[in-house]
Amino acid sequence: MYAAGDVRIEDAPDPIIVEPTDAIVRVTSACICGSDLWPYADMERSETGQSMGHEAIGVVEDVGAEVSTIKRGDLVVMPFASSDGTCEFCHEGLQTACVHVGFFGNNGMNGAQAEALRVPFADGTLYPLSVGEDDVLMPSLLTLSDVMGTGHHAAVVARVKRADAVAVVGDGAVGLCGVIAAKRLGAEQIIMMGRHQDRTKLARELGATDVVAERGKAAIEQVRELTGGRGVHGVLECVGTEASTETAVAIARPGGAVGRVGVPHYPAIRLAQPMFYKNVTVGGGPAPVRAYIEELLPDILDGTIEPGRVFDRTVDLDGVPDGYRAMADREAIKVMVTP
Amino acid sequence: MYAAGDVRIEDAPDPIIVEPTDAIVRVTSACICGSDLWPYADMERSETGQSMGHEAIGVVEDVGAEVSTIKRGDLVVMPFASSDGTCEFCHEGLQTACVHVGFFGNNGMNGAQAEALRVPFADGTLYPLSVGEDDVLMPSLLTLSDVMGTGHHAAVVARVKRADAVAVVGDGAVGLCGVIAAKRLGAEQIIMMGRHQDRTKLARELGATDVVAERGKAAIEQVRELTGGRGVHGVLECVGTEASTETAVAIARPGGAVGRVGVPHYPAIRLAQPMFYKNVTVGGGPAPVRAYIEELLPDILDGTIEPGRVFDRTVDLDGVPDGYRAMADREAIKVMVTP
Repeated sequence: MYAAGDVRIEDAPDPIIVEPTDAIVRVTSACICGSDLWPYADMERSETGQSMGHEAIGVVEDVGAEVSTIKRGDLVVMPFASSDGTCEFCHEGLQTACVHVGFFGNNGMNGAQAEALRVPFADGTLYPLSVGEDDVLMPSLLTLSDVMGTGHHAAVVARVKRADAVAVVGDGAVGLCGVIAAKRLGAEQIIMMGRHQDRTKLARELGATDVVAERGKAAIEQVRELTGGRGVHGVLECVGTEASTETAVAIARPGGAVGRVGVPHYPAIRLAQPMFYKNVTVGGGPAPVRAYIEELLPDILDGTIEPGRVFDRTVDLDGVPDGYRAMADREAIKVMVTP
Repeated sequence: MYAAGDVRIEDAPDPIIVEPTDAIVRVTSACICGSDLWPYADMERSETGQSMGHEAIGVVEDVGAEVSTIKRGDLVVMPFASSDGTCEFCHEGLQTACVHVGFFGNNGMNGAQAEALRVPFADGTLYPLSVGEDDVLMPSLLTLSDVMGTGHHAAVVARVKRADAVAVVGDGAVGLCGVIAAKRLGAEQIIMMGRHQDRTKLARELGATDVVAERGKAAIEQVRELTGGRGVHGVLECVGTEASTETAVAIARPGGAVGRVGVPHYPAIRLAQPMFYKNVTVGGGPAPVRAYIEELLPDILDGTIEPGRVFDRTVDLDGVPDGYRAMADREAIKVMVTP
């Protein structure tokens, strides 16, 4: 990506092992992410461009001398952030705060919308799968690299538990995975707040019990009505705007919690006073998806959850620029890339 | 209180039972609270005035026909909020969100800086003590009505646990109780952020391991240095200004939590982006002190904690106006009132 709206497919040198903890991964499937749409909308022109993409499954082609648990030929999930697996934050399960954290397809780091890429700290970052490259579950497994783990993080931070009333703000792929996560954790009422009918229809199939298409005050009013005037126990904020976050705080029940996973494009969280008087907690951030794979993988393998349903289009590398356009135009929910 | 700075002692009719769930409590000890200093600083002139005070221990003089667990002659702790004890929020331990909640000394409700007051929902609100009216522990027991429970709430929301590094923002009575609460929950490092030497000296006696007298950027830098560059696991925000809350978010470690108990006098929580990228959680609000009495009382009775040490002045009713002045001038930390 060279600027907002300017995505190009280019030949690049093959990635090579630089550090002894590196691996080279040949990408078998990757994605375009809702968060890629932010630079697609507002990136300033760059001479060098930024290699894009941070979600992938692929085959390990080579490993550095110090890599011990990952080996050539492994099929692996690549979380959107690399992490050393050994620091105190990794031990606490917050790999996105690793002292050696790196974000793929960001700040000059190589991206996964490519044939192959270099992965730092292979042992800490990559998660080996026991299925074949052509497994029918591949789309769902691919969501472990970001959107399913991110939706789950929102639900964990929103403290979703059995019998809760929950709202999901945003009907993108993360919001849809948030619905799956909330249902999986036992929520009884799941209110999807979104206005794209194809997406809210899918949300209902995935477990949403109600849909609120309004925004702002009207939306807040509707959630109150749907919850006997109380508001919801947990809110999964999957958009990242000032208005969506304000709505999230407003619809939370006293003692409730908001899990933010939409990358925030605002400087301050409003409603500091209502939030206080209601004892509402606001948390969240970049999801430690690496930590969640172990918990979520069995439910994908046995078919309990099907997050792969968020993909509604597949392109090859040459189709990536149009994939960005389709997602930006809300023509596609989430695009899978098979290089 | 008739206006900022205008506190008067007046004869008032004796309180009477109005609802069958009421009790009349003769106040044996009450307090002036840091939060009373907000209206003392900025209250607009009122014709009728507001009866003040929301913390008390007293003797039950009369009960309504439907009061069943509280009886005449009981010595009781009166939390700062009345609660019915039966609604879903009371059952969840969030009595300050009770559907019948009332805040003593606020919005026309009678206050405890008085000889006696009417207490709604006596069964749900009052907590009977098994000690005598003249017990030497009375100052510490009195803090169960607000400041000790409030400091504990900040620590609970900040998720303080064994071996944590914790910061307490604010050296008022609540901040000092926050130090006691953090120590009680096992914090290893407790950084008191305050600049009144008499208070920070007491904070050290109560368990603070470090004191940071600076504010703003210098304070943030010092906390970083004291914590190996990481920041603290938990922050107890006991002030309530925009700047103190910004500092609280800034000094939190990745994955850390901020517990706000300072009544917020600001519209929005700044640093929405650093808070997100660090996965820092911000919560808190009016403490459900009624829920915490059961947990904290034994530690007061056996001398493990001594929150009564925050009182450094005692006045009778006629001394209340000067008590406000002394607290506002930072001459006294917290004033006890013995009517």
